[in-house]
Amino acid sequence: MPTDLTPLIAARSVAVVGASADPARIGGRPIAYLRRSGYAGRIVPVNPRRSEIQGLRTVPDLRETEPVDLAIIATPADLVAKSVADSLEAGARSLVLFTAGYAETGEEGALAQREIAAAAQAKGAVLLGPNCLGAANFHTGMAATFATSLESRWPATGGFSYFGQSGALGTYWIEMARRAGLGLSKWISLGNEAQVTGADALRYLAEDDETRTIAAYIEDIKNPDAFGDAVTLARDAGKGVIVLKSGRSPAGARAATAHTASHPGDDAWCDRFLAEVGAYRAGSLSEMIDVAQILASDTKRTGGKRLGIATVSGGAGVLACDAAERLGVPLAHFSDDTRHRLAQVLPGYASSRNPVDLTGALIADVDLLSKTLCIMEESGECDTIMFVIGAMEGIADQLIETIAGAKARGISLVVVWMAMPDRLADRICRLNIPLFAEIEQAIVAIAGGIRIG
Amino acid sequence: MPTDLTPLIAARSVAVVGASADPARIGGRPIAYLRRSGYAGRIVPVNPRRSEIQGLRTVPDLRETEPVDLAIIATPADLVAKSVADSLEAGARSLVLFTAGYAETGEEGALAQREIAAAAQAKGAVLLGPNCLGAANFHTGMAATFATSLESRWPATGGFSYFGQSGALGTYWIEMARRAGLGLSKWISLGNEAQVTGADALRYLAEDDETRTIAAYIEDIKNPDAFGDAVTLARDAGKGVIVLKSGRSPAGARAATAHTASHPGDDAWCDRFLAEVGAYRAGSLSEMIDVAQILASDTKRTGGKRLGIATVSGGAGVLACDAAERLGVPLAHFSDDTRHRLAQVLPGYASSRNPVDLTGALIADVDLLSKTLCIMEESGECDTIMFVIGAMEGIADQLIETIAGAKARGISLVVVWMAMPDRLADRICRLNIPLFAEIEQAIVAIAGGIRIG
Repeated sequence: MPTDLTPLIAARSVAVVGASADPARIGGRPIAYLRRSGYAGRIVPVNPRRSEIQGLRTVPDLRETEPVDLAIIATPADLVAKSVADSLEAGARSLVLFTAGYAETGEEGALAQREIAAAAQAKGAVLLGPNCLGAANFHTGMAATFATSLESRWPATGGFSYFGQSGALGTYWIEMARRAGLGLSKWISLGNEAQVTGADALRYLAEDDETRTIAAYIEDIKNPDAFGDAVTLARDAGKGVIVLKSGRSPAGARAATAHTASHPGDDAWCDRFLAEVGAYRAGSLSEMIDVAQILASDTKRTGGKRLGIATVSGGAGVLACDAAERLGVPLAHFSDDTRHRLAQVLPGYASSRNPVDLTGALIADVDLLSKTLCIMEESGECDTIMFVIGAMEGIADQLIETIAGAKARGISLVVVWMAMPDRLADRICRLNIPLFAEIEQAIVAIAGGIRIG
Repeated sequence: MPTDLTPLIAARSVAVVGASADPARIGGRPIAYLRRSGYAGRIVPVNPRRSEIQGLRTVPDLRETEPVDLAIIATPADLVAKSVADSLEAGARSLVLFTAGYAETGEEGALAQREIAAAAQAKGAVLLGPNCLGAANFHTGMAATFATSLESRWPATGGFSYFGQSGALGTYWIEMARRAGLGLSKWISLGNEAQVTGADALRYLAEDDETRTIAAYIEDIKNPDAFGDAVTLARDAGKGVIVLKSGRSPAGARAATAHTASHPGDDAWCDRFLAEVGAYRAGSLSEMIDVAQILASDTKRTGGKRLGIATVSGGAGVLACDAAERLGVPLAHFSDDTRHRLAQVLPGYASSRNPVDLTGALIADVDLLSKTLCIMEESGECDTIMFVIGAMEGIADQLIETIAGAKARGISLVVVWMAMPDRLADRICRLNIPLFAEIEQAIVAIAGGIRIG
């Protein structure tokens, strides 16, 4: 039976059992995050030794207050079994269990884990973990996690969601998505999957109206049928599913077993399985973010096919062509008319074929970029235009104005800015223009976007 | 006959023909750079209409002063032929010709290019270009280039050199190398290679005492015998040669012809050729920088074999193992004694095998990292230790202190910091510790370092 994550992700009341007054501690962070995120639900710190924590009234025992949708178990390891039992008795509809030391450590831990899962199951409660970093709903402000990425700011909301068997990688994902200008929806760290599995999380996200793209880090696929069905559900709803599946190698598989008691299985099978069900397999966390940037951009609308390339570096143009042909991204072919129009604005020695080489002449005449992009767009021969540049601190502000102007005219743009001055990234990402630091990286993402469709 | 680049790269006097008072113009930039770089040689601005430029006395005609080692031709296109002839007549031992519009534009341009090359050859002068961004010697401050990467600062000196058929990619290389904390030696933009070829540049760098690692961007190999001999010369001198060879695809090859009149040829042959002569073929500019970071670090000394991995993310550990096995980087195997010592400092649920998982416990106890690195080092079972972390703004400063301490104790470290707070990169690179933003990227670089040896 699949587990429905609604009581957890859409929780309207959250208790923290073992609540701490210190916002840097595991039992203090969820409260600090919930208070700052704008969460409108009830927050119940449970602590028998304090009457108030982080400005909130505590209860000494969860059984002494109205039942909550979600109880976060943040007590020391030796108290966990009792805290779980008490929370279930108090009517908590879902539990998040951070604590490690269960199935990933051996048979004894596995037994303790099975007991907790059975207790939750008996009460019809949802159990996330153990050995996990919890979950978050960025739209409601529900933060059942101690993920450190949330300590300095609450992410902008959007349609990008994560679930996975690594909480730490999930926290890096939060920060990397923020830097790429992607808005976030839901975040689920699975840990040992005593009850809630990857398939359950994926099904929830497939059916979640606020989720448009799903990223997953997984070490094994415990129930391929359920997982495959959930991918289908997501794909039918027009959502991209990007999977980073690890444990490809014998050493990686051993490490996965020590990490989350996973058994990665045969990687070639896994590769075929993911391809057959329509999930995109990424090679790194960065690639997940890169492909999601494309899916969230205008390139999704245009299909990203017939790529036009404009660059100030002839060499970059050559590298872009190589990558596009290798990865199956079709290059735009310019008609004689388009080439003629381009030749009229470009220096005599510059190529008016695709890739268009603006050459160093751009430094003296920044308008060249605007004119070139317009001609490429008006030709109707490019679906997406990739602009490749590097460094250029001196004219960076003018270039960004031009890029913003092109975007405003409806041009589907992708920018590759090598050795980019740090201060520019935010400005480009805020325009909802995919931004990359390397040519190959951009083409991989565009190819991924085309494949996901 | 190979061309010796000494008169150009080691030039003790530099003239700029067509010198401009505007430090932002092509004829003004070399003078501005030469003045700021600490260049101790003679600088001769040539301009018949001004007596002084950027604080320097001009000469109206190069023939009216003592012969110079190097004349930079920065006159308008229609004056180039005369400027070249006058400079040769004035006894210039080498010429840098920025101007484009030669062989890359067709037969007429090719003819003009051959005439200029023949004129230089007849006088025994070195000719770099045309259609190039010039050259620089970071050790002497000799800047015969208008590369914009040099406008805000002169790079730190070191042993990393570049030559290539793309000046723009070369300027990005300067900035990317700087960010990675790599010191630079020589920089040569070849352009159309009318006389000085890639093989000439490579031979010069192979014999240059200040160069330790050579990076090259090439679109074709015009003289494989000479190129191969130069690689051998560099390898015999213990230098790594990292080549980014483009034009792999038909579209890329066409773009290369439009760019530098290159004919990339059969890529499979090229792949074999580079492997046989002992050059490392990189897939991107980033990879060139990444591998150079490893070659410039302690990992070079230890050979980078037997990789120990310490991480706070079990998932990152799994991904690191996968990448290491795929790319042939041997993983360290810990003895029972080492595992026992690690188990004494790690939380009970954390893995004491390689990869070592410090888990989130590191957040509460930063000393865990120092203890773990010491045990791994003292075991003698790791040649290099890769520490993988992400985000962690809150304890970043303490982590960097620990990393600096480990480095000071002689531990050969590589750091992967995903979603790293921007402000930290400089601090890590200044410690001469290779720093990467992704796991796979780091392992590719380590594998490259092992292969180059």
